[in-house]
Amino acid sequence: MLDYKLLEAMAAVVDEGGFERAARVLHLTQSAVSQRVKLLEEQSGQILLVRSHPPQPTEAGMRLLKHCRQVRRLEDDLDVDLNLAGDSFTTLPVGINADSLATWFLPAMQDYLAERPVLLDLRSDDQDQTHRLLRDGVVLGCVSSRSEPFQGCRCDYLGHMDYRLLASPGFRDKWFSGGFSAKSLSRAPMLIYNRKDEMHVLLLQRVLGACPDLNPFYVPSSGRFADFIAQGLACGMLPEQQCGELVAQGRLVNLIPGESERVDLFWHCWNIESSVMDSFSRALKAGASRLLARNR
Amino acid sequence: MLDYKLLEAMAAVVDEGGFERAARVLHLTQSAVSQRVKLLEEQSGQILLVRSHPPQPTEAGMRLLKHCRQVRRLEDDLDVDLNLAGDSFTTLPVGINADSLATWFLPAMQDYLAERPVLLDLRSDDQDQTHRLLRDGVVLGCVSSRSEPFQGCRCDYLGHMDYRLLASPGFRDKWFSGGFSAKSLSRAPMLIYNRKDEMHVLLLQRVLGACPDLNPFYVPSSGRFADFIAQGLACGMLPEQQCGELVAQGRLVNLIPGESERVDLFWHCWNIESSVMDSFSRALKAGASRLLARNR
Repeated sequence: MLDYKLLEAMAAVVDEGGFERAARVLHLTQSAVSQRVKLLEEQSGQILLVRSHPPQPTEAGMRLLKHCRQVRRLEDDLDVDLNLAGDSFTTLPVGINADSLATWFLPAMQDYLAERPVLLDLRSDDQDQTHRLLRDGVVLGCVSSRSEPFQGCRCDYLGHMDYRLLASPGFRDKWFSGGFSAKSLSRAPMLIYNRKDEMHVLLLQRVLGACPDLNPFYVPSSGRFADFIAQGLACGMLPEQQCGELVAQGRLVNLIPGESERVDLFWHCWNIESSVMDSFSRALKAGASRLLARNR
Repeated sequence: MLDYKLLEAMAAVVDEGGFERAARVLHLTQSAVSQRVKLLEEQSGQILLVRSHPPQPTEAGMRLLKHCRQVRRLEDDLDVDLNLAGDSFTTLPVGINADSLATWFLPAMQDYLAERPVLLDLRSDDQDQTHRLLRDGVVLGCVSSRSEPFQGCRCDYLGHMDYRLLASPGFRDKWFSGGFSAKSLSRAPMLIYNRKDEMHVLLLQRVLGACPDLNPFYVPSSGRFADFIAQGLACGMLPEQQCGELVAQGRLVNLIPGESERVDLFWHCWNIESSVMDSFSRALKAGASRLLARNR
């Protein structure tokens, strides 16, 4: 069998983002961690880690990491079944899109998390990026907009979020007094999460035929996104879950009535027999079905 | 003089995170962008971009980028002074720590932003990481915990945020019924933003002499951090600005009364004569002095 002490050292370097932090977590010296990774590379005859800041696993390193995480998950389940670990915690590394984390994820999972000795290791990214975390072996499961399952993974539909182009009433009056058009839009500031965020492009291409040149105002904060829009600083795309109350209060209005961009969300996780993964998946699906709209 | 068309192409590739996106923004074909970057590399006799995903500037590339951004800033100011640009916007790339963005930044800047044709290109990271964005030429200014100015930059004190170790009353009763100690803490879940977040380590080292092994629960969302703690899922470090109301309502309590970890915040920006940078800096300092505590 593989020497899991060596694998554990490599996984810690990747998880913690460096040899020094890995040493701290494993209660080893930094040189001992370094030795273990080197030995694992000699045994497998391949470079497993690129020594960058932070260190990055190579393709071979990712494959080993994924295996290591699956074994650890099975082992944690064994601990729970045999009560080996007493009252200690088990950790689930999960990828989640920033908008889900900012909205429905906590209400969906708080009862489950309050009752179980489960710690989450959440990694956040855009909904069309989180599946990379799963593919690369960083997480055991992820919430993603990708509908095709990965090899060796299950994929369940969770529900959808509808994004509308919203603005404050004052902003609409200032920039769109002559109605909504590509021309008026190209003069107004547009709030965008970051360069990977293409939600507005998809909507505008569909509604206007093409996305005009915009005045991008970048705010990489899901929690603050709605506030920048409500303050009248820009228009921007918000899901129902994040703007419902502000729309009801009349503080936000839809700039393109009747039009929205739908994002279907899916739960991807490795197809391993793990009671903790199973119960987490069940709770997530149940919570999503309460808090997200569903179209199938 | 340098060929700024070529520099602009390289800057767009870095800013937009790829040749394809850069081409879209510049209204060029992808191969034209590629040609321009190659030509700039030939002229300067150095590799400027590592062709990774996303492309990364080399040391020489960063130096050129920084220069390009400074020239663009001066040019934008000229546009404003001579009214060349009409009613168009000017963009300020700014680095900001996630906790500031989640708390005082918008209230501090909303009046300024509402009155001026300024778009922000905000980049977010930990307070001890944002200065790298300035050093690497990604932003023109940053809010950072670093107190030493960079060469060619100004550095102004903004104020401080005090972080306390907080929990819900139920969480305190469950895990700390015998009082707060390293032992009781080592059994309880601890909310941590991500692997770079060391706030709790600093406090615990000071109060307990050493940081015990913890049960880390990672939630990379400033906006949701307080909610996970208020739900009783973990204890965690929160600044006054983010927990004041919850503490006043009795929904959060301080686990180590009288102890907090102070983070001084500074505004770093390039020392170039730019009226927009100047007015932005003035507004930021005035806003911070209203919303942050100050100790000097």
